[in-house]
Amino acid sequence: LKWLLPESLSTPALVVDHDVLVANLQRMSARMRERNVALRPHAKTHKSLDVAALQRAHGVSGLTVATVGEAEVFAAGGYEDLFIAYPVIAKGDKAKRLARLAASVRLSLGVDSVPAAQFLCDAGLAGNAAVMIEVDTGQHRSGVLPEDAGPLAEAVAELGLEVEGVFTHAGHGYWTRAAPLGAARDEVTRLGEAVESLAGRGIRVSRVSAGSSPTVFGSAMPPVTEERPGTYVFNDRQQVALGAADCEQVALAVAATVVSTAVRGQVVIDAGSKALGSDRPSWLEGFGTVPELGAAVVTSLSECHGIVAIEQHAPPKVGTMVRVIPNHVCPVVNLFDSYDVVAGGELVSRWPVSARGHLA
Amino acid sequence: LKWLLPESLSTPALVVDHDVLVANLQRMSARMRERNVALRPHAKTHKSLDVAALQRAHGVSGLTVATVGEAEVFAAGGYEDLFIAYPVIAKGDKAKRLARLAASVRLSLGVDSVPAAQFLCDAGLAGNAAVMIEVDTGQHRSGVLPEDAGPLAEAVAELGLEVEGVFTHAGHGYWTRAAPLGAARDEVTRLGEAVESLAGRGIRVSRVSAGSSPTVFGSAMPPVTEERPGTYVFNDRQQVALGAADCEQVALAVAATVVSTAVRGQVVIDAGSKALGSDRPSWLEGFGTVPELGAAVVTSLSECHGIVAIEQHAPPKVGTMVRVIPNHVCPVVNLFDSYDVVAGGELVSRWPVSARGHLA
Repeated sequence: LKWLLPESLSTPALVVDHDVLVANLQRMSARMRERNVALRPHAKTHKSLDVAALQRAHGVSGLTVATVGEAEVFAAGGYEDLFIAYPVIAKGDKAKRLARLAASVRLSLGVDSVPAAQFLCDAGLAGNAAVMIEVDTGQHRSGVLPEDAGPLAEAVAELGLEVEGVFTHAGHGYWTRAAPLGAARDEVTRLGEAVESLAGRGIRVSRVSAGSSPTVFGSAMPPVTEERPGTYVFNDRQQVALGAADCEQVALAVAATVVSTAVRGQVVIDAGSKALGSDRPSWLEGFGTVPELGAAVVTSLSECHGIVAIEQHAPPKVGTMVRVIPNHVCPVVNLFDSYDVVAGGELVSRWPVSARGHLA
Repeated sequence: LKWLLPESLSTPALVVDHDVLVANLQRMSARMRERNVALRPHAKTHKSLDVAALQRAHGVSGLTVATVGEAEVFAAGGYEDLFIAYPVIAKGDKAKRLARLAASVRLSLGVDSVPAAQFLCDAGLAGNAAVMIEVDTGQHRSGVLPEDAGPLAEAVAELGLEVEGVFTHAGHGYWTRAAPLGAARDEVTRLGEAVESLAGRGIRVSRVSAGSSPTVFGSAMPPVTEERPGTYVFNDRQQVALGAADCEQVALAVAATVVSTAVRGQVVIDAGSKALGSDRPSWLEGFGTVPELGAAVVTSLSECHGIVAIEQHAPPKVGTMVRVIPNHVCPVVNLFDSYDVVAGGELVSRWPVSARGHLA
């Protein structure tokens, strides 16, 4: 990492370098503009009105969110075009909240089943929210197969809901280090098949939405009209390992303090699973790396202890501050109430993680 | 689970059954009283002033916490005897905050190195906070070996700090399903050796503190004078698998809604890693079980999606509410802002997770 850590932080702390962040936003906006593809970043990564404001300054108009609660936070923050890229179930409390949202912003929602569409109708969303049909392009998590997209869209339209387009998340781009390229191809091919399946039922759509940070460049081509990367704003160890970012493009780290060197061959830092999350893809060892300790790996986590293996190093002094580049930044951000924003090694601002905990 | 879920919840939700919770508190208080061992529960599990008040009603006077921030929350809530069972580094901001805490409550702190003790002295804590020497009884995370406890205690005392006792966390009780018994024995034996090591340096201690929910009954005997279990208040899938709790003693679940049944052999629920955490011991498959689906396992997690394998079942309807018993309840509680408290299947209260996010 090129950027420096101010000594005044109280650890563990979520630290973001303002310059690297802005460079990341700029790069993505420029590339999507070149490809003539709309950029609708996933705000679940940053959950921050401050980061969203920077994205807007770089030409972003619509945002993607994962939950009704996140949509409410960004709507209250003045964002008027929100896509809940999730199979939303408009039951109980959420039915009312979605109706309120739809009355105040341009709202689009994911649907992958007729019952879910029926809940949207019952919530009174026909006519004031648009549906995006979720397509399974290979992750096999949610979404219908491309050939089933047309029949589902037809059933949704018959309920009186507007079908605006199709979308997918190529999560299988995270399955191996070599997966992103194939997953990006799957997005393009299978979203194309889904568009044809809709056309076969007489439904023409204007919006074909793909996206994840590792596949965003590989899939930004027709018929895709929109990309929804999230992690690109900060990047993380996983993105670097997948080839989606360079180390210099990592804008975020967890600052931690060495609290114990009592056990030989390791040091303990005060960032455990409650600061770093426990996400670990099968193709990465450990839970993060520590640049200050020669890229040593965080090999295991308790809730408030991170164990860093330092076989080759003399242990740093108890009290030393270090950074951890986490495996996966999204759940990490979700563990903190605020970002410590640095520029030129100085603390310049504190930003709230505005949508943290808005899970429902 | 014997208790029922109210239909009115907005999912994902952190749900606790009041009656099962109270029974758990009662049982632990009674057993520790029988053994004549002080119960100083670890509040990192519940992070709740409401749960702490119930613990107090069942005879608990002192609490254990993991961070300075947690200590501040419970001090502000009126708890006057707090043990930060962690190798606390009193640097910068934390030096001032610890000094403020020590002025207002009876504060004890973990130490496993001379430099850490020096930071405490520099923060002005000599004379108004007590030190507990951390002993490694087999987890090999932090703490000194029993035979090194005396020399460390002597060095700490020479700095002018009061050494009140020794403590350990037998985290190796979680390593296999059969581990708790041996880990409890290690606590008793090695804390005994540590006490002798201190006595050899002329330091007599009154407090010998052990604890973790799986080892609490096995180690509640002399020379142990205090136990610090945390998870016993709610229990979880891990405690049941370790034999530390019965299913009927599980007081907490994450309520979730089935959001997609599009992919055969699985259902998707709206509790992912941001609601369930990603903790998984090597000896447990998946990330939780779903009682409503025949104890089906949550086999994989995205941030807002949980995949539940249901090979043997007909898929439940989209919109169905289910409960997930999480692997490890402590990081799960830390992901929510509040508990939905139920009794007799009705929502009776909402409790804030008061110390959530107080990581530093």
